[in-house]
Amino acid sequence: MTDNIIQDVLAKALVLCNPTAAEEKKITAVAEEAKKLVEQQSRTTPEVRGVIFGGSFAKGTWLRGDADIDIFVKIDPSASEDKFEKLGIEIGKTALKKYRPRLRYSDHPYVEATVRGTRINIVPCYDVQKGQWKSAADRSPFHTQYITETLDAAGKEQVRLLKKFLKSTGIYGAEISTGGFSGYVSEVLIAKYGSLEGALAAAAEFKQGQVVSVGDYDSDVAKGFSSPLVIIDPVDPRRNLGTAISPESAGRLALAARAFLRNPSARFFARQKPDINKRLYRNVLVVEFSHRERSPDTIWGQLKRSANSLAKQLELAGFTVFRTTCNTDEKKSGAFAFLLESLVLPEYMMRRGPEIARAKDTESFVKAARPLAMWADREMRVSTIVERKAVDARQLVKTLLGRPEANGIARDMITGRVKIYSGSGRRRLSGMAKEAVDELVSTESLIFR
Amino acid sequence: MTDNIIQDVLAKALVLCNPTAAEEKKITAVAEEAKKLVEQQSRTTPEVRGVIFGGSFAKGTWLRGDADIDIFVKIDPSASEDKFEKLGIEIGKTALKKYRPRLRYSDHPYVEATVRGTRINIVPCYDVQKGQWKSAADRSPFHTQYITETLDAAGKEQVRLLKKFLKSTGIYGAEISTGGFSGYVSEVLIAKYGSLEGALAAAAEFKQGQVVSVGDYDSDVAKGFSSPLVIIDPVDPRRNLGTAISPESAGRLALAARAFLRNPSARFFARQKPDINKRLYRNVLVVEFSHRERSPDTIWGQLKRSANSLAKQLELAGFTVFRTTCNTDEKKSGAFAFLLESLVLPEYMMRRGPEIARAKDTESFVKAARPLAMWADREMRVSTIVERKAVDARQLVKTLLGRPEANGIARDMITGRVKIYSGSGRRRLSGMAKEAVDELVSTESLIFR
Repeated sequence: MTDNIIQDVLAKALVLCNPTAAEEKKITAVAEEAKKLVEQQSRTTPEVRGVIFGGSFAKGTWLRGDADIDIFVKIDPSASEDKFEKLGIEIGKTALKKYRPRLRYSDHPYVEATVRGTRINIVPCYDVQKGQWKSAADRSPFHTQYITETLDAAGKEQVRLLKKFLKSTGIYGAEISTGGFSGYVSEVLIAKYGSLEGALAAAAEFKQGQVVSVGDYDSDVAKGFSSPLVIIDPVDPRRNLGTAISPESAGRLALAARAFLRNPSARFFARQKPDINKRLYRNVLVVEFSHRERSPDTIWGQLKRSANSLAKQLELAGFTVFRTTCNTDEKKSGAFAFLLESLVLPEYMMRRGPEIARAKDTESFVKAARPLAMWADREMRVSTIVERKAVDARQLVKTLLGRPEANGIARDMITGRVKIYSGSGRRRLSGMAKEAVDELVSTESLIFR
Repeated sequence: MTDNIIQDVLAKALVLCNPTAAEEKKITAVAEEAKKLVEQQSRTTPEVRGVIFGGSFAKGTWLRGDADIDIFVKIDPSASEDKFEKLGIEIGKTALKKYRPRLRYSDHPYVEATVRGTRINIVPCYDVQKGQWKSAADRSPFHTQYITETLDAAGKEQVRLLKKFLKSTGIYGAEISTGGFSGYVSEVLIAKYGSLEGALAAAAEFKQGQVVSVGDYDSDVAKGFSSPLVIIDPVDPRRNLGTAISPESAGRLALAARAFLRNPSARFFARQKPDINKRLYRNVLVVEFSHRERSPDTIWGQLKRSANSLAKQLELAGFTVFRTTCNTDEKKSGAFAFLLESLVLPEYMMRRGPEIARAKDTESFVKAARPLAMWADREMRVSTIVERKAVDARQLVKTLLGRPEANGIARDMITGRVKIYSGSGRRRLSGMAKEAVDELVSTESLIFR
């Protein structure tokens, strides 16, 4: 019965996942054209050992309406790092000249262009033997090879279902902003568990520190990893693909998997609107600002660390921070948002001195105190009631941002004026700040129904 | 220099402590008269083995303007407990008939009367060998004997100074209401340290669990005591006179002793007005009620335990209780008072579920929750924001008092209507409630200047 329901649901979901024939034809044409251009450009460059497709296009696991084409330019491993980077940029830029190529950075620079609506990435890698990695991209051709050898057409459909499921759950993508599951991780999970259902059944049972490995693995190596999920790269068993996965994402996967298996529905393959609770707006503190342009992973990393530092300072000052987030348009506008128990704290607080038996310490404490009341308490300490320095979270954050570096805010990141306000104010939230605020006060209806 | 100052101060203080010749003459006359009446009454009672003075009058350590006369009626140890109590009451009541004697209870019943302004206590005790205690009063004649043998006239003056010092500090008296130092403890401290100055110098250095003993003591026995100060009774080394001393009183003594030794002043021998901070009134929650008449120690014990139970419930509900007190006129009016960080709490609170990996527990938690928001958090638990049940301390205490016994309020103690209000209200505080409130918001200027 449930099996039939699941099969029905998956059949419907597959329609959303599999590219149409027309789309496939168009993408393939674009890909072939781009590859030819890169090959032509490489012909005169002796360091280039080959030009190949990579990523989901090469593996046939890309999602309908969501194809990127990765073209890897394999460089002779004897080339210096400088030469390697220079060649990658030159070949990409020249080959796709007429498509207005842009320079991008991941672990090293690469070239991106949009050809008839489809994004093309030209990425250099060293033409190495397996395991002899020189650059971060060198594993990619081996990933492509591994997946194409391991998964048949049915397996690839299961990958597409899993990717779609992860997208709907908001945990698809290894970027720092998402902290979720990459395309390759999705493929490895299907290689391991055989199907979407198998992968979800496993995920429903994942324990913290769970090790997922297609083949045997060295448990000593695995013990060295500290991510909530450890996913061994079948192409490089010393590498943990789970590093990028946040505990929130790991937890969400387990919850979503259980929700789906309990009550399979096509809704799990389309992004649902979260259930936003506007009553909580007044408990949200928003910080809006402009920031320098940096690569997305860099700025997201800086924003996350900065938001967490502010949250910690708020806690130290006595505020209860329920939830913290940040957002950016990845160009220049950024926001922090904090869901607080209260934006204001009581006027007075208690401060306890040392044990009275520690005479000198007690004397210093009493001398330094300017209390509203002071007494010997039942723990044989001096207790005092003092005025709280920071009673308003807005004011405190303003003060903290006045000395960004001392308070764990990334150096030089924030430029220009900062706006600090509560979510309940009449101020019109920018789309980006509103996204952050809504994230804090929402419940994923898909997971928690 | 300091020595001279101290001697000057003590000379002045002694005037406040030593009874005047006229007072002494009058008290002695009253005492002799009362004793004669008791002796006459006892003459026909074969169980009575003698009538003797006890307490501070017998020891010559009573404070000017503050004399009680204790008369002990020594009963044959073969008398049953019933007989013992009956005889004590009968003799006392009949002997002092014309002075309208009242029945009182300590560990056993005794008779009290006021003769020309002086209180007389007629207390039965068994005429036992030292150590063969049958009733709680049996040690008293031995205490009297020990102190009169140990202290000379100068020593007795030092006791008076110490008593006066303890009174000014608000820690004189072993009753539960005070939790302080009894007259006998004062005498033992002078027997041990020789003088007020010696006793204060020692008190300034007291550690928690400090053992004070005039003679040798059994350290195994001392280890069994858990009071902040352990004071071995010289008449019964298995008895800890420190049991009644609260940690607050012990702490206050150390602080007051240090303050005096640093800056000796006659102010330490006259009760100072504490420094009341009316700004804190609005942080005080007052509960006024009428209670059944019970012996002072009984009602104080019940009030203190009840106030502490309420404070604990307030804490469990999320309130921060800085300080708790209670008060009673020892007849029928009682009050609790709590100094709170805030009388209201934020509307929402966070509730965390179990680890997500514990699937069943997580499912139950999610099902039971009626949250405003819910999400998978970075500790891989489900976090929820829920409405707080009790946001107003007044309302909560009202609810708690509706089921007194379930909430640690002494059974049947509270009678009639209960008034619950904040210290900042316009309500006129009864003298007794005001005392309680003022105690919470005050600083002892004598100790903390």
